[in-house]
Amino acid sequence: MKYFITGAAGFIGSSLADRLLREEQEVVGWDDFSTGQEPFLEGARKSPRFQLVGGDNLDLTALTAAMAGCEFVFHFAANADVRFGLEHPGKDIQQNTIATFNVLEAMRANGIKGIGFSSTGSVYGEAALIPTPENCPFPIQTSLYAASKVAGENLIQAYCEGFGFEGYIFRFVSILGERYTHGHVFDFYRQLLDHPDHLRVLGNGAQRKSYLYVEDCLNAMLHVTRAHTAREAKHHVEVYNLGTEEYCQVTDSIGWICAHLGLKPELQFTGGERGWVGDNPFIFLDTAKVRGTGWKSALTIQQGIIRTLAWLQENQWVLARR
Amino acid sequence: MKYFITGAAGFIGSSLADRLLREEQEVVGWDDFSTGQEPFLEGARKSPRFQLVGGDNLDLTALTAAMAGCEFVFHFAANADVRFGLEHPGKDIQQNTIATFNVLEAMRANGIKGIGFSSTGSVYGEAALIPTPENCPFPIQTSLYAASKVAGENLIQAYCEGFGFEGYIFRFVSILGERYTHGHVFDFYRQLLDHPDHLRVLGNGAQRKSYLYVEDCLNAMLHVTRAHTAREAKHHVEVYNLGTEEYCQVTDSIGWICAHLGLKPELQFTGGERGWVGDNPFIFLDTAKVRGTGWKSALTIQQGIIRTLAWLQENQWVLARR
Repeated sequence: MKYFITGAAGFIGSSLADRLLREEQEVVGWDDFSTGQEPFLEGARKSPRFQLVGGDNLDLTALTAAMAGCEFVFHFAANADVRFGLEHPGKDIQQNTIATFNVLEAMRANGIKGIGFSSTGSVYGEAALIPTPENCPFPIQTSLYAASKVAGENLIQAYCEGFGFEGYIFRFVSILGERYTHGHVFDFYRQLLDHPDHLRVLGNGAQRKSYLYVEDCLNAMLHVTRAHTAREAKHHVEVYNLGTEEYCQVTDSIGWICAHLGLKPELQFTGGERGWVGDNPFIFLDTAKVRGTGWKSALTIQQGIIRTLAWLQENQWVLARR
Repeated sequence: MKYFITGAAGFIGSSLADRLLREEQEVVGWDDFSTGQEPFLEGARKSPRFQLVGGDNLDLTALTAAMAGCEFVFHFAANADVRFGLEHPGKDIQQNTIATFNVLEAMRANGIKGIGFSSTGSVYGEAALIPTPENCPFPIQTSLYAASKVAGENLIQAYCEGFGFEGYIFRFVSILGERYTHGHVFDFYRQLLDHPDHLRVLGNGAQRKSYLYVEDCLNAMLHVTRAHTAREAKHHVEVYNLGTEEYCQVTDSIGWICAHLGLKPELQFTGGERGWVGDNPFIFLDTAKVRGTGWKSALTIQQGIIRTLAWLQENQWVLARR
């Protein structure tokens, strides 16, 4: 099978590329390197079954050409910056919504029907039901990032109904693990390298969040897309929450990180229930649907955080890159 | 109060402009005249409190300039063509999603906070709950049109949370009445003028649909936005279904239309539950929320259809325009 991965130089994209190449699959990796990291593809580039194409999802012609001959698309490329959406309101709509539209149009031009998409638990806004199932009450969006991801989901759904695509939408909790370059573990580790005696924490630290280890995330996506569950679905599309069966408080995570590093910093909370406008004080997804397919996670949140930290300690170059 | 209306030369936009001008309000009407009708603004243009600006929502600079000095925006301009979305997949995303983003950006540049938006009951897809409440299970989108309207809703919601906007999202059933230029009554009437002895009906005629008379629709929007219900809402945005407490079958409507016209055409059904890909065989919205604010509809669906037909009979120029 020949896979096309957008965001192939990113955290999840490069991890999936490596996994597929180990399985002897063919992979075309597509990335604009705006946030992707060349070193993440060092292994992949040694494989004759890997082809890297540099390009921007907003360039539909180049995207269409790069996708030629592929059979399934994993679309991960995105502006993943939830927090600063209000500083550049057009960025999410371009890089997430229009980009997803272009991916779908490039697929249509190439006769490719299957797509896996990285959406987010943020689409539930401040969810009315926790743990939140995929069919929870129609949410109100609270960030431009999530709004742009719902728009991507909905475009995929309309293409599944209208053009017979087979769609897999994965609403991720925060993903952790090797090659993680974005989020609270990254921020806290960088801060503690700079000033081991204190740590600035957005909000009151009581935010409850969910995390999933990257290899568990890849296992889930490959398991579900290969079972072709969407082919039997009413509208040829399935939506799956991906996460563990637990959540943690920011302060739990701080405790694990500090214990691992042997530090006892003074905690400086910025205060408030939310770390920023649009921050969601409690994210915990109901993952019964994906577990019903036979998948389960291997690592706990604490184990995922420790692996992430260990990788950051061994790969400090990534701190300097951002 | 000075209102800005996008799609001011359209069915609902021009009706609202006339209503507001009768109330001695000021109105700036904005339209690109791609589907808007100059004659609908004949009355409005006689008012010194009305200003017409021709322009395209994709031209953010012109839109921003036109909006200067206004205090509230009704955003109706849209590609409202649900049926042919698959023939030009980029149209909905441009004219509905990007256009709404531009309206929000123009508002932000002008310091305008209040917006009323015409969304659609189509956002519920093939709803899991009927009658469908605003907080029904998170739907799967089945048309590019509805996907683009959800995207517009979600952008408005993110602006309400992020920039303190006050948003009113109205999910319309099909709207009927004077100046109606789009939909089954229009199609059937035009067919019966051409060939009174037979009528081609998309699908099996058993589709169950909901309709609301345009003046009832305007009453609801003005009632709710003037009560400022969104100011008290958690995320400064309220979503309201707008419709009557009934629905009808396509064949009911055909019966009323034919009785009014004194015709007995042979009915030729194209067959199938759905009139086209993405057509929804049953649309019936739960309107308890808007009725809870004190609004109620005055006309039944049958009365609305007859008024529409009477207007089409007196305004046959509109049949030639499309």
